[in-house]
Amino acid sequence: MSVKLEGNIFVTGSNRGIGLELVKQLAETTGEESHIYACCREPEGTRAEALRNLTTRYPGKITTIKLDLSDEESISTAVQAVSKQIEDGGLNLLINNAAINQPAPPAPLSATRKKDMMEVYEVNVVGPFLLAKMFLPLLQRATERDTPEECKGDKIRAAIINISTIISSMEKCPETFPMAQMYPYRASKAALNMLTCCQAEDFKKHNILVTALHPGWVQTEMGGEYAPLTTQESVEGMLRVMSSLSKKDSGMLLDWKGNIIPW
Amino acid sequence: MSVKLEGNIFVTGSNRGIGLELVKQLAETTGEESHIYACCREPEGTRAEALRNLTTRYPGKITTIKLDLSDEESISTAVQAVSKQIEDGGLNLLINNAAINQPAPPAPLSATRKKDMMEVYEVNVVGPFLLAKMFLPLLQRATERDTPEECKGDKIRAAIINISTIISSMEKCPETFPMAQMYPYRASKAALNMLTCCQAEDFKKHNILVTALHPGWVQTEMGGEYAPLTTQESVEGMLRVMSSLSKKDSGMLLDWKGNIIPW
Ligand SMILES: NC(=O)c1ccc[n+]([C@@H]2O[C@H](COP(=O)([O-])OP(=O)(O)OC[C@H]3O[C@@H](n4cnc5c(N)ncnc54)[C@H](OP(=O)(O)O)[C@@H]3O)[C@@H](O)[C@H]2O)c1
Ligand SMILES: NC(=O)c1ccc[n+]([C@@H]2O[C@H](COP(=O)([O-])OP(=O)(O)OC[C@H]3O[C@@H](n4cnc5c(N)ncnc54)[C@H](OP(=O)(O)O)[C@@H]3O)[C@@H](O)[C@H]2O)c1
Repeated sequence: MSVKLEGNIFVTGSNRGIGLELVKQLAETTGEESHIYACCREPEGTRAEALRNLTTRYPGKITTIKLDLSDEESISTAVQAVSKQIEDGGLNLLINNAAINQPAPPAPLSATRKKDMMEVYEVNVVGPFLLAKMFLPLLQRATERDTPEECKGDKIRAAIINISTIISSMEKCPETFPMAQMYPYRASKAALNMLTCCQAEDFKKHNILVTALHPGWVQTEMGGEYAPLTTQESVEGMLRVMSSLSKKDSGMLLDWKGNIIPW
Repeated sequence: MSVKLEGNIFVTGSNRGIGLELVKQLAETTGEESHIYACCREPEGTRAEALRNLTTRYPGKITTIKLDLSDEESISTAVQAVSKQIEDGGLNLLINNAAINQPAPPAPLSATRKKDMMEVYEVNVVGPFLLAKMFLPLLQRATERDTPEECKGDKIRAAIINISTIISSMEKCPETFPMAQMYPYRASKAALNMLTCCQAEDFKKHNILVTALHPGWVQTEMGGEYAPLTTQESVEGMLRVMSSLSKKDSGMLLDWKGNIIPW
């Protein structure tokens, strides 16, 4: 049993960093029937140029979707646009990748405001919460489209991947806190892990798998220049892990090599 | 080494339920020099009658403080009022007890809105976050007032207790989810646990202990009538646990009997 990395795939935060690389590698590795919905806040803006180039390089493979996770209406509009394009197909994979880390640059408790706590939670947790809720019918539809032959292979036909982080681990807090305080970000990712656990239980009946992944420490705007991993290495690892996920991994937090991270 | 349940003690959500019982038992058991700051949203309202009666029963022992955790200005006003009354004393114990559970009555994912996610986080996490941040100078002052003799007893002079819940445990989610879905509440309490871990690390240098406690399933408006524990039993247990906490318990989640709950 494993997750089939084919079909309709939705990736948030895909104009740069890990999200952009996810779209690139998925465009390269998925079959003709697969389609990628690549989200960003400003598809026409200068910050989406790399994504536009990718869309041109793989004609008909990628649809760019405008999505601001802090705006409920934007989420609902994005879901509707995808539903319409998919028609009676389903959504096979939802990757909640977009996230923010405020205050930026990271600051200690004394410089962290209510606004930071609320905004980071809104984007990192409530956005993924709403996406999963609104996409649930489409995810279910993907699982129902199992033809008998596909069933034989015992592939999981629908999954949600929540991109979390090792610093969401409370057990590891004594090790990780000194070099990365980040109260709002840590609190949000611990909550995202809880969301992962809840949805894993809730969606078990629908045969939808929900797993949290830590991408490693990666060279992106968020990860900074000292990070040891390139987006290419991180995403290669995560896609390998995703494609080998089975039911036992639902409701878990794994790193890009497939190792379990304790809560 | 243990926490001294004496001195200036601040309890949120103390007009009813567990918070009211905390104030009652603390008023009964603490010495003459101790003082309790009992918070509620409407000190003059009908819902604060039991607290007003308690204040009358223990003259000079309890100060009622108006506090709405969803309102940053209200938090800052409350902290200022306490600072003023304490004068050059410190705050020995901050108990973050108040919390909400929305939607009420509990509802599944399909009936849970963005508003529920945001409001529950604001009260259950951001409120305690701001209180700890704003009270930090007063908590530090309490630790600095250690006289050599008190040091001998090796008592911890300042602590934050965050009232969490067993359903914040991700490890226990498969067991607890079916009977209590509560996405916003669970996500908020997992985040509160992370806050507990971060502050335990952050405040270690100040000798301030930070621990999360699960009160058990308790007969209150939130717990409902089928709960097995009375507020009296729960609070007796929690005060026993609090008074025996030592540094190794900082950054942990314990239940009202002192058992460790896994994250
Ligand atoms: N890099 C690391 O070392 C590292 C480590 C652990 C975990 N992670 C996690 O990995 C994921 C990707 O991180 P990254 O390093 O690629 O971050 P990044 O380079 O900062 O990219 C973040 C992405 O999220 C998008 N985004 C931000 N706010 C948004 C909003 N309100 N609505 C929609 N999209 C929004 C950004 O779009 P704009 O361009 O419009 O801002 C961007 O595409 C995140 O979940 C992060 O927490 C990263
Ligand atoms: N009861 C249980 O079985 C149980 C189990 C596990 C954990 N807990 C935890 O134990 C703690 C106490 O719960 P409880 O059962 O005593 O709950 P409760 O009976 O519902 O009382 C909640 C208290 O919080 C206050 N509150 C609500 N919103 C507030 C706000 N915005 N600002 C300030 N105060 C606010 C309420 O004041 P108002 O009267 O003004 O609303 C009330 O005093 C909570 O942290 C809860 O999560 C309870």
